[in-house]
Amino acid sequence: MDISPNLDEAAKEPLYIQLYQYIKEEIQTGRIPSSTRLPSIRQLAHFLHISKTTIQVAYQQLLAEGYIESKERSGFYVVDMASESFEHPPASYSSPSPNRDSNRKPKPIRYDFYMSKIDVDHFPYDKWRMCSNQSMNLEQKQLLSYGDRQGEIGLRRALSQYLRQARAVNCSEEQLVIGAGTQTMIRLLCQLIGLDGNPIAMEEPGYHGVRTMFQQLGFSIKPIPLEEDGIAIDELVRSKAKVVYITPSHQYPLGMVMPIAKRMKLLHWAEENGSLIIEDDYDGEFRYHGRPIPSLQGLDAHGNVVYIGTFSKSLMPAIRISYMVLPERLLNVYHKNLLTNDQTASRLHQNTLQLFMESGEWERHIRRMRKVYQKKHDVLLQTIKNVMQGNVTITGQDAGLHIVMKVHSGIHVEELVKIAEESGVKVYSTANDWCSCPKEYPPLILLGFGGLSLQEIVQGIERLHAAWLPFYTS
Amino acid sequence: MDISPNLDEAAKEPLYIQLYQYIKEEIQTGRIPSSTRLPSIRQLAHFLHISKTTIQVAYQQLLAEGYIESKERSGFYVVDMASESFEHPPASYSSPSPNRDSNRKPKPIRYDFYMSKIDVDHFPYDKWRMCSNQSMNLEQKQLLSYGDRQGEIGLRRALSQYLRQARAVNCSEEQLVIGAGTQTMIRLLCQLIGLDGNPIAMEEPGYHGVRTMFQQLGFSIKPIPLEEDGIAIDELVRSKAKVVYITPSHQYPLGMVMPIAKRMKLLHWAEENGSLIIEDDYDGEFRYHGRPIPSLQGLDAHGNVVYIGTFSKSLMPAIRISYMVLPERLLNVYHKNLLTNDQTASRLHQNTLQLFMESGEWERHIRRMRKVYQKKHDVLLQTIKNVMQGNVTITGQDAGLHIVMKVHSGIHVEELVKIAEESGVKVYSTANDWCSCPKEYPPLILLGFGGLSLQEIVQGIERLHAAWLPFYTS
Repeated sequence: MDISPNLDEAAKEPLYIQLYQYIKEEIQTGRIPSSTRLPSIRQLAHFLHISKTTIQVAYQQLLAEGYIESKERSGFYVVDMASESFEHPPASYSSPSPNRDSNRKPKPIRYDFYMSKIDVDHFPYDKWRMCSNQSMNLEQKQLLSYGDRQGEIGLRRALSQYLRQARAVNCSEEQLVIGAGTQTMIRLLCQLIGLDGNPIAMEEPGYHGVRTMFQQLGFSIKPIPLEEDGIAIDELVRSKAKVVYITPSHQYPLGMVMPIAKRMKLLHWAEENGSLIIEDDYDGEFRYHGRPIPSLQGLDAHGNVVYIGTFSKSLMPAIRISYMVLPERLLNVYHKNLLTNDQTASRLHQNTLQLFMESGEWERHIRRMRKVYQKKHDVLLQTIKNVMQGNVTITGQDAGLHIVMKVHSGIHVEELVKIAEESGVKVYSTANDWCSCPKEYPPLILLGFGGLSLQEIVQGIERLHAAWLPFYTS
Repeated sequence: MDISPNLDEAAKEPLYIQLYQYIKEEIQTGRIPSSTRLPSIRQLAHFLHISKTTIQVAYQQLLAEGYIESKERSGFYVVDMASESFEHPPASYSSPSPNRDSNRKPKPIRYDFYMSKIDVDHFPYDKWRMCSNQSMNLEQKQLLSYGDRQGEIGLRRALSQYLRQARAVNCSEEQLVIGAGTQTMIRLLCQLIGLDGNPIAMEEPGYHGVRTMFQQLGFSIKPIPLEEDGIAIDELVRSKAKVVYITPSHQYPLGMVMPIAKRMKLLHWAEENGSLIIEDDYDGEFRYHGRPIPSLQGLDAHGNVVYIGTFSKSLMPAIRISYMVLPERLLNVYHKNLLTNDQTASRLHQNTLQLFMESGEWERHIRRMRKVYQKKHDVLLQTIKNVMQGNVTITGQDAGLHIVMKVHSGIHVEELVKIAEESGVKVYSTANDWCSCPKEYPPLILLGFGGLSLQEIVQGIERLHAAWLPFYTS
């Protein structure tokens, strides 16, 4: 292979970009064929009389964009573009510099660190199919019809038992209401509370899927800042809010866990203030290090907490089953006003889930998935530590299916997200989760790891690192 | 058997009630053992020297309450109480007269004419299980995750094709939004229209499941009276409503079908007035006599109609899948504002349904069910005609899964419902479907026939007739 670009130190573009563009074009036009081994960084630096860092940055960019790949102890090789499903070569792509035009075509996403993806390789398909088929036959034909509006009593019984044991939730099947996803629970809850336009307090940042639902139903939001151990209670007190929505067991999106002392303080506030706490325990099943902390609801002696949970993380989002545990005062309103609301979750899935729980398969599944996710969680943290070293800081770990990464870079977090996307890695900022998004919100990247294999986690982080390499500041 | 009651013509209770009470007590105490054949009406009338009508009414009441049964060409026999699961004999039951106390224990319901019950005996369980199992395996593992928020594209494609062909709905898959039941579609729609508190016009009476949803979301309702061919358009014009919800193809609950001319008039109103029509075609698949009438949506050239449909009648309520077809102007709002709303219907069921439709099984199912329901519909009408004769008038027939029966009686319709219930037959008044229920609303009884077998339909109507016999006025 012959690489002899005409590099110009006086040109507008830095040397590493000129080099990167030159090699990229050679690959795109086929002048450097696939599988070709590129010269080593040392060799090329020597040959071109430029610094090794320049070569390294150019190579990292090509690596990040998927033009070349690195083979351990062997060097860099040109990737076979055909097999990469490169439908359109990024013709209008001009430069990886922070001044970017919007025409450039992103690479297909190969590594998606989406928070809501779950592991689908360890799901007990056979067992679920068996339970599902048991729910669908002539002997069970009444299951085709409308069921209990509140949720199937059998599922509520199995679920309340589980919640008492595993999440220290203080509940009976009478208090449980089933529904199609957490947003559906929130909608029902809003109808229960009454659409009076009174503001609802939320952590800032907080879960946008719930915030937009409140807003679409006409509620205004009082954003309450976060402290290191969760919502700022002093601010909450000042807000005079009568309803607060929080995620104490793994704050969404920042991932902190609210300690017991603060939980007690929060409950005290609710009791003093006559307020209602909506506790969303969306991924409470998964805690990897340290002891699980009991739910707020379980600590509450005065019926001021609504507990919301979901099977979307712990089992699968596809069946759309979430649930809430209502305190006495709301249960009365529910029975009085909301029993005209049809059940939204599938009766067949509810029955399947009940059989799945009663057979013991559910607990086996949770135990298995806790191990699977712990492994992914640990590999993710280890890889970040090894690869990105001091360039990032991690928070929000030890629980759930995502962590938070603060990137020490000179550019805006949205730019980091774009750069990642262009190299085929999808990561997420917290932008959507702010009620009033500050111009300079922290450079935080959310990394969900549930849906990626161990190998994908490692490769995704390596590619991410390569893409961001030119922009680190520490 | 010896029947020699001490009947007293001067007593407060009419003779037939004295006789009824006497025989009932004899049966309850076991003095007349089960399986005993009662004397024929003629024999007993002769023996007691009272009219055959008195005996007949007493026997009908015992029949209606399940103490005795009638065997064709053989006579009346005492029913085996043990096998009837008579947990508590109705000890406090005093009289079948219109002055009733509230302590009396109703009989267990043996015939439930609920409108929302479907036939579950002709469901293709094997085919559905096959499609369902195809959606649940390692090769399809992405189906466990979140799907398209608007609904799976494959299902939307199959469904839009069906709607174009079968319901003359003018739609593409892009316009279809899937969701967990019709109330969920209404909720989404309200969020689309905007919760501005402007009134929504509805047929009076109209579907309470939708009306309460509007009300819980803060809308007020403008009830518009019904004419013989559907909503009164003059009244609608006067209401100045910007949104109207209607069920033109089988008005809920009264069952009239809106003719083409009125549909065109309604569309003209919407266009002139800048109004939106929400067309709920909840059971449009089933029309038994006369030609199907195209949907309002299909007649509309200006994008003023939202079409809502459901699989709850045509397939089963258990999977909770409904859908709506949005006109352009609302589709834009949907894409702009509502794509933060998670899909509420199960992704697995959506995929199963798609396979079910693509395999041709769906059309076979609809054809089969149309025949099954037509048979039930015809038997119901014929039985009513034979048994109740001129004592009732039927409307709302020829479509859907329920008919409307006007009972010519001297007592309030709610009383008729109670009397039926006490004899083990559940029928429904339209009380819930009125926005401002008039004190003297018409004596209309809703009879759903989808969930009953042919035999149950016949027996249910016979028992109903027996229970109401003393109260007919014509």
